[in-house]
Amino acid sequence: MEGPRLRVLLGQAIAIGPGKADLLEAIDREGSISRAAKTMGMSYRRAWLLVETMNACFTAPLVEAARGGSGGGGAGLTALGREVLERYRALEDKAAAAVAEDLAEFAALMAPAPHGRDGRPPDRDDT
Amino acid sequence: MEGPRLRVLLGQAIAIGPGKADLLEAIDREGSISRAAKTMGMSYRRAWLLVETMNACFTAPLVEAARGGSGGGGAGLTALGREVLERYRALEDKAAAAVAEDLAEFAALMAPAPHGRDGRPPDRDDT
Repeated sequence: MEGPRLRVLLGQAIAIGPGKADLLEAIDREGSISRAAKTMGMSYRRAWLLVETMNACFTAPLVEAARGGSGGGGAGLTALGREVLERYRALEDKAAAAVAEDLAEFAALMAPAPHGRDGRPPDRDDT
Repeated sequence: MEGPRLRVLLGQAIAIGPGKADLLEAIDREGSISRAAKTMGMSYRRAWLLVETMNACFTAPLVEAARGGSGGGGAGLTALGREVLERYRALEDKAAAAVAEDLAEFAALMAPAPHGRDGRPPDRDDT
């Protein structure tokens, strides 16, 4: 099994976090919020709420509906959306690089895999 | 904007992150899981599940029930619990120092306060 993985949260992570960044990438790749949601195993409603939160937290929207095109629908990243995504990934990389050695030491304190008292895997939560 | 916070994942489980570190501190301070939960506005059940996840992710428990004492109950950090908490805080500080300048630039892209399209604040989540 792989060792521990690190996720970097910025501030309260309301504006953007690992999951929202993944969603931006999926929207960029899929060209649609609903297709992006599907590839992430997320409901359209949840993806839409996350997009709305991101749009509300920055000086301008990160995601916008594509204009025209056949069949309507479709969405993509704005220039700001791309910039936010790039900067966020760069911040993550920099923070992770800064702690890489310490994390390796920290990993020595960790179990090879989570071990529940009763054999269950422990709960998945985001705390 | 606050500095970055880190999550350390083991498989799908979050071995330790900002909320779990705060919970360890509260248990250390309060000497009990239930009092710690109360000061954090968290149910006892949730606090207990988080403790169980942490205990399952490391080589030995981070939190253990206090032995003896009047009225039973009571819990505290093990030596490993203290070490994990200290190392985690040090990791956070190091990551924060590494990205402080970039974070300030990033913050300039953010709205002074979240602005919902309909005036509602956006949902609070940490995705």
